[in-house]
Amino acid sequence: MGFRRKLREAIDRNDTLLCIGLDPEPLQMPPGVGIADFNRAIVEATSDLVCAYKPNLAFYEAEGIGGLRALEETLRHIPAGIPVIGDAKRGDIGNTAKKYAQALFDSMGFDAATVNPYLGYDSVEPFISYPKKGVFLLCRTSNPSAKDFQDLQYDGVPLYELVARKALDWNVHGNIGLVVGATYPQELERIRRLCPTMPLLIPGVGSQGGDLPTVTRFGIDESGGNAIINVSRAVLYASKGPDFATAARAAAEALRDTMNATRSHREA
Amino acid sequence: MGFRRKLREAIDRNDTLLCIGLDPEPLQMPPGVGIADFNRAIVEATSDLVCAYKPNLAFYEAEGIGGLRALEETLRHIPAGIPVIGDAKRGDIGNTAKKYAQALFDSMGFDAATVNPYLGYDSVEPFISYPKKGVFLLCRTSNPSAKDFQDLQYDGVPLYELVARKALDWNVHGNIGLVVGATYPQELERIRRLCPTMPLLIPGVGSQGGDLPTVTRFGIDESGGNAIINVSRAVLYASKGPDFATAARAAAEALRDTMNATRSHREA
Repeated sequence: MGFRRKLREAIDRNDTLLCIGLDPEPLQMPPGVGIADFNRAIVEATSDLVCAYKPNLAFYEAEGIGGLRALEETLRHIPAGIPVIGDAKRGDIGNTAKKYAQALFDSMGFDAATVNPYLGYDSVEPFISYPKKGVFLLCRTSNPSAKDFQDLQYDGVPLYELVARKALDWNVHGNIGLVVGATYPQELERIRRLCPTMPLLIPGVGSQGGDLPTVTRFGIDESGGNAIINVSRAVLYASKGPDFATAARAAAEALRDTMNATRSHREA
Repeated sequence: MGFRRKLREAIDRNDTLLCIGLDPEPLQMPPGVGIADFNRAIVEATSDLVCAYKPNLAFYEAEGIGGLRALEETLRHIPAGIPVIGDAKRGDIGNTAKKYAQALFDSMGFDAATVNPYLGYDSVEPFISYPKKGVFLLCRTSNPSAKDFQDLQYDGVPLYELVARKALDWNVHGNIGLVVGATYPQELERIRRLCPTMPLLIPGVGSQGGDLPTVTRFGIDESGGNAIINVSRAVLYASKGPDFATAARAAAEALRDTMNATRSHREA
């Protein structure tokens, strides 16, 4: 099954737009709990509340090969019906990008990956040529310095929007999505209008401060779906004690419900 | 010892600007030779001819955890006096970029790394805050699609040049360098003029077709150094038979000599 369908089915089945970012930080985790066990507990506590999981590879690579083994183990514990997005933000010249696509899609088996567009089409093509995988191009990122380059205007059009326009051109397999930070709601609204049917991956809610009802309203498509709203720290570290999994479930449930209130209000 | 000094000493000691890209492609390697053994033979045959080695992480990640183990083993076999650049092209929001910097500098022990600037200052800062490590920002990449975004003009200045100008602003620790593809000699000349003392990492010679004398002339600084000219495939796969290491040495020697002919001609 392709990523788009798997995503749609998970959104419908669990009635949720919530994606949990599996970004383990040992210093934030309960003492004595390893990364694989921590993730497994989070997944078991939340897998009926999410439409996707999104491990960011940096958190695993920082722990060396042991971290990558924990990632492999984590991936084995995610139920088959939940799509997993490898947040790797890779970008390299064609023959090298092909290797990154192999690493993320063939070797690790992610359903989708994030890709940095700075190197242009031939750095993206090796990813999108896997028609059943999702490819989320960084468009407008959630960090404060996003403005340094992404806001530069070319003939009145900011760079991040030019990335979105290219994404529309390049989307011959229908598997491209965009990353748009929840911390920039106006930009999110603009991108959703420009790309009415593209899946949007929206980080920046929770610790980063994006406002959830606004983000949900601007991020969803006409059907009330196609937005993947990611929260990491505010779920994973809702409690730093032995009840971390229960606390994560409660946090996830509250986030899902807030999003769904906005979705049904819009439908009403 | 910091990266800049280690690089300068390696350039002087080996009288070379050649960097070999350790990008193992199993299908190109002699049958039955594993990645770690292949790299070890290449390093033993060439370490007196290079100023740096540059493994691109994609080639290791594509082979799974076994590939990363081969990378670790490779790093142990590189002589201590030769700087090693982790070509990872990472780029993420601040707290995540910090994890990537840990992975590349603390866990893997690279002397320098390549970083993608699309996310702006706070994605670069965690790398440059390691003052003894080198940080090469992608400026003008060597691939044909580099033009898609990097050539966009902002008040008459292309994006890649704005990246170079930001690099000058951000260079408070003196450890920033730039990646400029050998396939774009005019852009290389322009960047060298703008950044007269910054180390330039120049891929794209050899299989990608950059002209070596031109690239050397435009890439070096006033002293004839500070340019790291990378060749991967044309050295690694000079022969695909059992004599691959000898053939790699011969190819590396020829490349070094061509660069040095341009350097001495300039000095004369």
